[in-house]
This record gives sequence, C-alpha cells and structure tokens, in this order.
Amino acid sequence: MTLTDDTKRSLIMTAEKMADAARAAILPFFRSTGLDTDNKLAGGFDPVTEADRAAERAMRAVLAEHRPDDAILGEEYGRSDGSTGLTWVLDPIDGTRGFISGTPTWGILIAVGGDDGPAFGIVDQPYIGERFIGGFGLAELRGPHGTRPLRTRSSGKMDDAILFTTFPEVGTPEDAEAFRRVAAKAKLTRYGMDCYAYALLASGQVDLVIESGLNAYDIQGPIAVIEAAGGIVTDWQGGPAHQGGRALAAANPAVHAAAMALLNES
Amino acid sequence: MTLTDDTKRSLIMTAEKMADAARAAILPFFRSTGLDTDNKLAGGFDPVTEADRAAERAMRAVLAEHRPDDAILGEEYGRSDGSTGLTWVLDPIDGTRGFISGTPTWGILIAVGGDDGPAFGIVDQPYIGERFIGGFGLAELRGPHGTRPLRTRSSGKMDDAILFTTFPEVGTPEDAEAFRRVAAKAKLTRYGMDCYAYALLASGQVDLVIESGLNAYDIQGPIAVIEAAGGIVTDWQGGPAHQGGRALAAANPAVHAAAMALLNES
Repeated sequence: MTLTDDTKRSLIMTAEKMADAARAAILPFFRSTGLDTDNKLAGGFDPVTEADRAAERAMRAVLAEHRPDDAILGEEYGRSDGSTGLTWVLDPIDGTRGFISGTPTWGILIAVGGDDGPAFGIVDQPYIGERFIGGFGLAELRGPHGTRPLRTRSSGKMDDAILFTTFPEVGTPEDAEAFRRVAAKAKLTRYGMDCYAYALLASGQVDLVIESGLNAYDIQGPIAVIEAAGGIVTDWQGGPAHQGGRALAAANPAVHAAAMALLNES
Repeated sequence: MTLTDDTKRSLIMTAEKMADAARAAILPFFRSTGLDTDNKLAGGFDPVTEADRAAERAMRAVLAEHRPDDAILGEEYGRSDGSTGLTWVLDPIDGTRGFISGTPTWGILIAVGGDDGPAFGIVDQPYIGERFIGGFGLAELRGPHGTRPLRTRSSGKMDDAILFTTFPEVGTPEDAEAFRRVAAKAKLTRYGMDCYAYALLASGQVDLVIESGLNAYDIQGPIAVIEAAGGIVTDWQGGPAHQGGRALAAANPAVHAAAMALLNES
C-alpha cells in the first residue's frame, strides 16, 4: 500500500495523540489499591481492568476525530470496519499480569497498516514515560533521559545472545521444548518483561524474543518498531507474524536464522 | 543499638547523598553500547561493569566525607572496618544481568545498621527515577509520579498471592522444588524483576518474593524497606535473613506462615 507523505504525517500525529490519551486514561489506575480485575477466560487468569477499557475508548475517540474512515481491531472492543484500506491494531494494556503486579513492563501497543501488516507502530510505557516509535522513516525512543535512535544489535552469534520470553512455560509443551533448545545455546535467558522485551530488542539491548499464543494486537506494534530499528519478526517458520500465533523477533538475520533452526530441530 | 535522632538524621541524609552519587555514576553506562563486562566467576555469568565499580567508589567517597567512622561491606570493594558499631552494606548494581539486558529492574541497594541487621535502607532505580526508602519512621516511594507511602498488602490468602523470584531455577534443585510448591498455590508467579520485586512488595503490589543464594548486600536494603512498610523478611526457616542465603519476603504474617509451611513440606 502506497501512502502519501501527508497521510503518513496524519497517521504519526494520530498515533501519538492516541498514545497520549491512553497514558492519561491508564496512569490513575496503575498501582492504585483495590484494582478491580475480572477474569476474561473462565479457568484462566487474564485480568481486564477498567484502565484497559478506558484506554481503548480514549484511543477510539482520537480515531473518530482524526481518522474516522480507518478500520480498527482492538483487544477490548473488537473490530470496526473502515474504507481506507488502513487498519489500526490496538492493545491498550499489553501485559495485564505485569500491570496488576505493579511492574513497569506492560505497554500501550498501537499499529497501523494494510492487510500485509503494520507500517507504523508505537510501544509506550506510561509509568516510565518511554515511547518507542517505528515506521515511515522514524525509529526512536523518547523517554525520561531524552531521545535516542533505535537500532538493533549487529552481533549474530547465538552464544552471545540475550533471549527473552515472558513465561517460562512459553506455550504448549512442544513450544516450551523448542524454546529451551534456543535457551540452551543463548548466553542469557530472562523472563517477565511482557511487551517491554520487544522494546529492548529494538533498542539494541537484547537479541531475541520468542513467544507463542499471541494475538494480532500483541505483536503488530512491536513488529513495526523492531523492523524500523533493523530487526526481523516472523513466525517460527519464517512466515509473517502479524496475525499473531508464534513470534520470533530477532536483532539481525544471522541470529534469526540460528534461532529458527533451533526452534525447528526435532 | 540505640541511635539518637541526630544520628538517624545524619544516616538518612548520608544514604540519600550516596544514592544520588551512585545514580550519577551509573546512568551514563546504562544502555550504552559496547558495555564492557567481564566474568567475575569462572564458568558462571556474573558481569561486573565499570558502572558497578564507579558507583561503589562514589558511595564510599560520600561515607568518607560524612560518616568516616562507620564500617562498610560493599559488593565490589569488600569490608572496611569502623568504630561506631554501624555498618553500611552496599550493592551498587543489584541485578547486573538485568542491567546488561537494559531492563529497569536493577537497583542501588544501601543499608545501615548494627550486627542484628539493617535499621534503615534504600532501594533506588535510577533509570525510572524511583527511590524506595524505609526505616527510622520513614516508609515512602519518591518517583516520577510524586511521593507515596509504602504499605504492604494485608490480604493473607495464598490463593490470592502474587509471587516473584528472579530466575525460574531459583537455586539448588531442592530450592527449586520448594519454590514450586509455593508457586503451585499462588494466584500468579512472575520472574525477572531482580531487586525491583522487593520494592513492589514494599509498595503493596505483590505478596511474596522468594530467593536463594543471596549475599548480605543483596538483601539488607530490601529488608529495611520491606520491614518499614509492614512486611516480613526471614530465611526459609523463619530465622534472620540479613546475612544472605535463602530469603522469604512476605507482605504480612499470614502469607509468610503459609509460604514457609509450603517451603518446608517434603
């Protein structure tokens, strides 16, 4: 999909306003006492907070004002059709378990693009005050210590790699076994970062993030930011990851290939 | 040990100056490219950065000026004798693996007390700009969103509990098995937070932090802050934890007792 510079500027400006609005909606709830959560999945633990819903409503209000003809896919309020060929993919709070634990590892995820995946995206951490931005020629972190370019690592050696995933169980038992083959070759494996792990990859801090069981709205913001910073995000077979499922995010082609080979060994 | 109000004020003021000095020493290194690490333990992965050493030197310089007669135990430069009966216990960067991964979960740990453990302590996260302070009547978080009192949770129900530890392997295989007995009863288990997990416990966000293989300087700052906020830190048998080893930090007596019973089942 070819976009004019005017359209790109409109999308960037709108995404920033959406992130600002979501921040304002969420922050009063973060680390408040008596956080009201309920279980979205019977038998599972998937808390949805008032903050989550309020933030998606705030982002949809910005879209209604500035980009009323674009489609929307949001975690909380589902799909809304559009007529421009562009879809906004929104996760108001990615990392709700981190959110209820008070860890500043959750984020607001915003992406916009056509059917082939996101062209522009934001990963925003409101408590720290960090915004990771990627696409349309931008790749930057704006945070409490200023603005820095985002650039993934260039070292492609697996035995130097830092690997992240959020939960040690990763996904199915087979997913976990595949993950452990990569972890066994990496220098360091860490857990618990939610979407912040993708932001660290875009920042050149870590080499690999491997996850499973994702939805489109969990991964599209990260894809846009990581690709803009020079990294690669695919599924575990090297195909597109923007519809969710299993994701392999890598700092460079060499470490991506090495990790994919290990994931698919058996 | 009985301390005068003047001495307490001197200790608080000195600790704050130390945290400020350590912040200034560390921040230029955090997320810098080409971080120079070396392995402290042959065969293990325990990076020591220039930041770690520079921060301890900066803290020792503050002590030399303001509290020259107190003893010091520091992670990087070991023991220095004193004559006041007070010892400062310092970890300039707790969570060096988190530090090299770019996660804002590491912290500056400062504690001061007699032989019976810390009377006052600080857990400081410089990148976020958060300082968790506890002891001498203080229990507060000062951060980017203002100052808040620190108060641990009062719910003592294990099936409502959020449990943290940094590494899923925890310690020895026996340690890990004991940990998993607690995790199986908790509502949610999360990983990867380094010393920040203790700060979250003091903040009333999580219920339990269980770790093993600690040094005195890893736990004394957290002990002071958590106790000031109403929590409890012991070893896994309920004895003192301030010399390191295995630590069980809990928000309240009920959840502490429940977790200790599970740790010691066999």
